[in-house]
Amino acid sequence: MKELEKILDRITERVNINLRERKFDAGPYIRNAVPLTQMLKFYAFYGLTHHHPLHFRFSRSSLAGTYFLGKCTVDDSVLYKSNVRGDELKVKGDVIHLGGMDMTVFEDEAIRIKDSMLVKTLVHNFSHDPEDPEEFTIRNTASFHYANIHGSPVEGCFLGPFSTVDLTTVHDCVIGPYAYVQTGEIAHRTVEPGRLWIKVDGAFEFTYQFPTERLRKYVSLEPGGQPEGVFIDFINRRKSEFQKVFDVVRRKPPVHVPHSTSLSHYAVVRGKTHLSENVLVAEKAFLEDAWMGTGANAQENCYIIRSTLEGYNVTAHGASIIEASLGKKAFVGFNSFLRGREQAQLTIGQNTIVMPHTIIDTKGPLEIPSDHLVWGLLRSQEDLSTQSLPLEKFAQIEGAFQCGNMTFEGSGAAFVNRFHSRIQHILEANGAFFDGTHGRGHAQKTHDISYNTIQPYQEGRLKGLYPTIEIWP
Amino acid sequence: MKELEKILDRITERVNINLRERKFDAGPYIRNAVPLTQMLKFYAFYGLTHHHPLHFRFSRSSLAGTYFLGKCTVDDSVLYKSNVRGDELKVKGDVIHLGGMDMTVFEDEAIRIKDSMLVKTLVHNFSHDPEDPEEFTIRNTASFHYANIHGSPVEGCFLGPFSTVDLTTVHDCVIGPYAYVQTGEIAHRTVEPGRLWIKVDGAFEFTYQFPTERLRKYVSLEPGGQPEGVFIDFINRRKSEFQKVFDVVRRKPPVHVPHSTSLSHYAVVRGKTHLSENVLVAEKAFLEDAWMGTGANAQENCYIIRSTLEGYNVTAHGASIIEASLGKKAFVGFNSFLRGREQAQLTIGQNTIVMPHTIIDTKGPLEIPSDHLVWGLLRSQEDLSTQSLPLEKFAQIEGAFQCGNMTFEGSGAAFVNRFHSRIQHILEANGAFFDGTHGRGHAQKTHDISYNTIQPYQEGRLKGLYPTIEIWP
Repeated sequence: MKELEKILDRITERVNINLRERKFDAGPYIRNAVPLTQMLKFYAFYGLTHHHPLHFRFSRSSLAGTYFLGKCTVDDSVLYKSNVRGDELKVKGDVIHLGGMDMTVFEDEAIRIKDSMLVKTLVHNFSHDPEDPEEFTIRNTASFHYANIHGSPVEGCFLGPFSTVDLTTVHDCVIGPYAYVQTGEIAHRTVEPGRLWIKVDGAFEFTYQFPTERLRKYVSLEPGGQPEGVFIDFINRRKSEFQKVFDVVRRKPPVHVPHSTSLSHYAVVRGKTHLSENVLVAEKAFLEDAWMGTGANAQENCYIIRSTLEGYNVTAHGASIIEASLGKKAFVGFNSFLRGREQAQLTIGQNTIVMPHTIIDTKGPLEIPSDHLVWGLLRSQEDLSTQSLPLEKFAQIEGAFQCGNMTFEGSGAAFVNRFHSRIQHILEANGAFFDGTHGRGHAQKTHDISYNTIQPYQEGRLKGLYPTIEIWP
Repeated sequence: MKELEKILDRITERVNINLRERKFDAGPYIRNAVPLTQMLKFYAFYGLTHHHPLHFRFSRSSLAGTYFLGKCTVDDSVLYKSNVRGDELKVKGDVIHLGGMDMTVFEDEAIRIKDSMLVKTLVHNFSHDPEDPEEFTIRNTASFHYANIHGSPVEGCFLGPFSTVDLTTVHDCVIGPYAYVQTGEIAHRTVEPGRLWIKVDGAFEFTYQFPTERLRKYVSLEPGGQPEGVFIDFINRRKSEFQKVFDVVRRKPPVHVPHSTSLSHYAVVRGKTHLSENVLVAEKAFLEDAWMGTGANAQENCYIIRSTLEGYNVTAHGASIIEASLGKKAFVGFNSFLRGREQAQLTIGQNTIVMPHTIIDTKGPLEIPSDHLVWGLLRSQEDLSTQSLPLEKFAQIEGAFQCGNMTFEGSGAAFVNRFHSRIQHILEANGAFFDGTHGRGHAQKTHDISYNTIQPYQEGRLKGLYPTIEIWP
């Protein structure tokens, strides 16, 4: 597998050159992220529908287990069990309004991945960089287990496991494990593990820092090692269920799927699971004894287990919900880990916003009221006092505010409004409000999807690499 | 499925223009060959190995269930459950010697399919047209169930079900059901159903005509209908077994597969089947209680049921062997149908050559001695007197010779030598003589194959068509 090793060496060099100021060596992470023989075992695949204009090109790359939708090129890269969803890219003719300026999109946007390694990483949404509207670039970057690259062009970056870069252009940064960044643009920074950082220039800045030692129980990564902790153990215990799904070409859906609902072939569904209308269950989601109300969704890498979602719930990429009841429109952000217990259910009231990267892991019953914002690490009902606020109260903040490890500066109303409009957009994009005629979204548009599979050379000089493949309508 | 229908109309027009002298209307055959909804149901797939340099391009075509290997382009065509195997194409630098002239191959040969419909058709081997050595062309042609296009460029042709064109360039011809043509070149001809015709200019000509009415029991095709008769009924009774194979991505081989032997994922293997060393079982072959001796092969669309092949047996594309014992190096040609009975085994001695398109269908025991040539329709032991000759005796023929419905003219020795050298070539190409170091062939070279799958649009304007796909190393 000489050629594959050469590509990994090249990626390491490029990431390190970009991060030379940070004095960061990506080598030990890249070399040990995936045993090379694993790259031979799993097919990659891409979706084909008449709703999503497609264009793919894959060259000099290894793509094991990765899923592609929409428009994407991958060159000189190694992608392992990642998801690259180009179903919300900008299209030719779109106009971007920014600070009184208009910018027209001259050709359909595409995701361009070059000289990068993405391990179990999710890439979705459109590039929020107005300077280059037609390209969602991922370049000279190494990204690790269950990182989310969401609307965020990244160049020269290291993204730790379970980290998220969201609506942010990121240059030459090290993003630590479980850090979440939504700041528009950052460059030449190290973001510490477990840092939650949301900033809109001239409006507000929200930060939270997970207690370092307590976070290590959930996720950590040492140079040369694999991610460790509760998150990865939880996922690994369930991964054999996915193999069963990947081993068959067609199957009858294991539960009733209403016509307006979409259940991916590549999702696991177990036990007494119920899917209502307008539900989206995406690739690599895992449902077990899950009750999904109208318009609820389970995005990629979600786990929803012995839980009830009353309806219009967003379960963002990588979020887990275990032994919990969620009221209508309760929102759960990226990579949140919400774990109740059989004898001590977790209850989340309607309209409540669980911030991205929130850990609620309780041994006693825990109830979060309606219309609240909740963030950070919560192990008991008492933690709510320092980690949640009624949304109404939050919206009244003006200026500086502190609560436990959270600090806020600016307009609370702007913060809450931004969240509300984003949740509304996500529900619309997913087809949660489809009425049979209007409001079609992902849940309806992926209904007639077919999947094509691709595999690497199994022997010879190119062992582990894929042939060059180009696909267009 | 408007676009798909347009392509079928276009193919019909082009075939009919080419066959205007024949006053042949391909329309009723093309329109009814496959219900269009079937084109949505089955994925096409292509093989990837480091032994076979690949280049594929598929555009404006429907390819349901078709298998591709090697180098092939398909444009404006409809292929249904066909096999297009480009693993014996000529390669750059090859030199063709013909009548004292040398011709150098300047680029790797590729199969080019354009404006054609191929239903359950096998395409294999390299183009035997020295005038255009880099292209194996199939153009403006409609080919039906289990036809073989073997080393034969065809333009403007209609090929009936179970017909074979072998090592022949064919222009503007109608080839009737179960006709077999190996004549170097033919143009503007109608070849009657069940005509067996082998001709080498200046050397010999062999012809046999199946009795028309008796052949209809085995295969017939009326305009607007589907193929009927024993052949297609026999195949249809077994087709659900193939669905099981196509529905899984990986499976453990159901029997022991020696390291020098190749069993395709897409072959059916049932009952007590034994595979020896250097055996090749190709895509869409069917084995049930089959004993395959060293170096025996089962090519595409073969059925070998409750039978023993002692070793070094060629079972050419589309041949069926039921309740039979074959001695070493016994050869069975294209689309032959050999059916013994449980209480009345069919025995074929070693080195015996069963000509392409031979039907042996017996209710009593039938034994064909060693070193014989056998051809035509045989229903009992008595038929051997008019349908077989010892090879030694055949080789002594000089000039005109007749035997039952068979006529021969020319050198029997040239005929027998040609057969022997071809059988030797086939065994070598398939790796029958591999000794662990030398003599590697298809049985060893497809060992590390991986398959990629492709599917059509399921809805929308392009419903039933595939996206444009290009693949190269």
